[in-house]
Amino acid sequence: MSQPNTPHGFFTIISRPRFEELLRQFPPLESEQCGLSESSGRVLTEDLIAEHDWPLLDRSCMDGFAVNARDAFGASETNPAYLECTATLSIDVVPDTPLGPGECARIPTGGVLPEGADAVIMIEHTGEMDGTTIEVRKSAAPGENVMLRGEDARQGQIALARGTVMRPQEIGLAAALGFQEMALGRRPRVGIVSTGDELVGVRQMPRPGQVRDVNSHTVAALVAQAGGIPVHYGLVRDELESLTEALTKAVAETDVVLLSGGSSIGVRDLTVAALEELGDSAILAHGVALSPGKPTILGRASGKPAIGLPGQVTSALVVMHVLILPLLRHLQGDRNAFDTTLRPVLQAELARNVASKPGREDYVRIRLEPRAGALPLAHPVLGKSGLLRTMLQAHGLATIPAESEGLDQGRLIDVWIV
Amino acid sequence: MSQPNTPHGFFTIISRPRFEELLRQFPPLESEQCGLSESSGRVLTEDLIAEHDWPLLDRSCMDGFAVNARDAFGASETNPAYLECTATLSIDVVPDTPLGPGECARIPTGGVLPEGADAVIMIEHTGEMDGTTIEVRKSAAPGENVMLRGEDARQGQIALARGTVMRPQEIGLAAALGFQEMALGRRPRVGIVSTGDELVGVRQMPRPGQVRDVNSHTVAALVAQAGGIPVHYGLVRDELESLTEALTKAVAETDVVLLSGGSSIGVRDLTVAALEELGDSAILAHGVALSPGKPTILGRASGKPAIGLPGQVTSALVVMHVLILPLLRHLQGDRNAFDTTLRPVLQAELARNVASKPGREDYVRIRLEPRAGALPLAHPVLGKSGLLRTMLQAHGLATIPAESEGLDQGRLIDVWIV
Repeated sequence: MSQPNTPHGFFTIISRPRFEELLRQFPPLESEQCGLSESSGRVLTEDLIAEHDWPLLDRSCMDGFAVNARDAFGASETNPAYLECTATLSIDVVPDTPLGPGECARIPTGGVLPEGADAVIMIEHTGEMDGTTIEVRKSAAPGENVMLRGEDARQGQIALARGTVMRPQEIGLAAALGFQEMALGRRPRVGIVSTGDELVGVRQMPRPGQVRDVNSHTVAALVAQAGGIPVHYGLVRDELESLTEALTKAVAETDVVLLSGGSSIGVRDLTVAALEELGDSAILAHGVALSPGKPTILGRASGKPAIGLPGQVTSALVVMHVLILPLLRHLQGDRNAFDTTLRPVLQAELARNVASKPGREDYVRIRLEPRAGALPLAHPVLGKSGLLRTMLQAHGLATIPAESEGLDQGRLIDVWIV
Repeated sequence: MSQPNTPHGFFTIISRPRFEELLRQFPPLESEQCGLSESSGRVLTEDLIAEHDWPLLDRSCMDGFAVNARDAFGASETNPAYLECTATLSIDVVPDTPLGPGECARIPTGGVLPEGADAVIMIEHTGEMDGTTIEVRKSAAPGENVMLRGEDARQGQIALARGTVMRPQEIGLAAALGFQEMALGRRPRVGIVSTGDELVGVRQMPRPGQVRDVNSHTVAALVAQAGGIPVHYGLVRDELESLTEALTKAVAETDVVLLSGGSSIGVRDLTVAALEELGDSAILAHGVALSPGKPTILGRASGKPAIGLPGQVTSALVVMHVLILPLLRHLQGDRNAFDTTLRPVLQAELARNVASKPGREDYVRIRLEPRAGALPLAHPVLGKSGLLRTMLQAHGLATIPAESEGLDQGRLIDVWIV
């Protein structure tokens, strides 16, 4: 009788949603004070309270004439109103004379409305009779063509709330209100430890049996995409002592540790053993039910995430996109970090059937073929996850849910561009 | 009789596609030699020729036994094959002994196949009889579970072609092949000149009539998003001499000049006049048929794009997204910079009718309301383009084509997340 050879070391394989739940339990990093120009894409961790209204005053949206809407009531091409122009306003001066009944003032776009004015008539709907009389050929509702004081932000109220992601428009409002600095979620430092007896650096010519390290470069590029700061801990041999030493240093110096090692059972066992060697550590999962990417080890050391990435390059890329980049956004305070419904996609028509094993989520690499007047065709790119080829040829990923046995040709799918 | 008041200075208003055509005529910037770690998101401007195959040798995808497929032909659970295990291979050593007929070798994931082996049987489909005899319960096709030498790249052939955008996977292949540096399209330096007598910097408290400059902050954040390097030329008064001086300096020192000024006719005329003052300059367009964003001035100075952005904050943001970010990608060598069919979107159902003036492309700000089990509802956010409010409240933009009179409630639309 033969003794069955079985893979070991895979004690707990959990679903992708459960894995995310565990990742979400790591608390966001503390805040740091940052200048406005460093805020792009980051998350506000304090409420910004407006110290004054914005706009500061009622300003004109148009070149034209500031009026009191009552004075132009009912004005039309056939029944114009005639108003007395008493001032020509500059953009940077607050008018000091109020508008009297029957009066108007020439105003540029952005100019401040005089007291007594509540609307602006576009210059196109006016005519000049003589030096001072203006023919108004259109009526205006109160507030028409006027940016009202406080429409964007009101003094004493929250202009930008804690948790807001700073897009260019939020940066604009912060600038308008005079915020030169603000508290933002700190960018995580991400330690990258590559293990493998066969690995050499990019500068070296591999001897027979050796290969250049790939994953630390792909992983670093991805970390930066999510706002993280990659910190390299070099290439470590597949032995417990060296690995534990590198991990200890990385855990002490960074906020998240990513181990990129081989995919063999021996190396995975070694990763688990090294994580267990660390003080105050726990293994939370020995795998995740997604493909490619199953042999992903989730650990916690000194309260920080320590993750063993799959060794196969494509598996590591998929796990980074699906799980680790959202983690890095979450650690910066992004409340929607794991929300895939907010992820923009390209719709495409699946060019052929794709089978999938139920019980795990599949991430199929998709090559898009543009078509005139129709959605692009989505070609699944099949191949070994140890190779880069499928990711190089693909434009993005399509998800096959865990409960599905596959997707049929002709079906519309969402392609996540990566 | 009245003299009609008409806006002037708008001589040539062109369509968005025509504007893009003019932008595309600016040639991409020259290349620069960059390190691998600086390449992310940038465009390769040389072919990278593989100096060796990748993978370098045939390697196993699995933990298991390297075999010659012939020796396991027809093997199954009920009819296993029995092979002699003659070696236990390490990941970093090239086996020096060829596999003889009827022999196999224990191999880890990533291990190099010995001569004579052409497939790997997964460890799960094997059993151990005694110290050396292995029971094989599954057949394997030649090449099965093997990453073949040269599958990702072949010696002497183009591994990554000129024009490729360097994603993490391309960075991985470049690392695998030993490219520490490569020629990439240079990142454009983008001069930002803000004009306006009413403007003060973010650090200043505006006096009555003044406002803090908003656009140079939003524009700088957007420039950086597209890989450009923002260079600020400060706040310039609305007068020809100061503006011409700032522009001359910016044109000399940067690759693209963006003027962010007011939206009044006077300021637009001044912008045109200042651009015309520059040596070797031409005005290519006085406006573009999109809304918001019409008063966009396209000039060329010393062969470089010099663009007068609309002064209204929302108009400037839309023009940056629609025209200027693609220009910055184009200048870096991205051949698909203007291809909107490659732009990921969120599908949503329009919550109410939106009217549009035919003859111009409309960019409607959209707020998304998530719904369980259905596409999100898309609420148009209407409001004045001089305010930030609509962009702050929106998740993205929906395009209404120039020929359309609007979109009907209930229609599915693509929302471009910005």
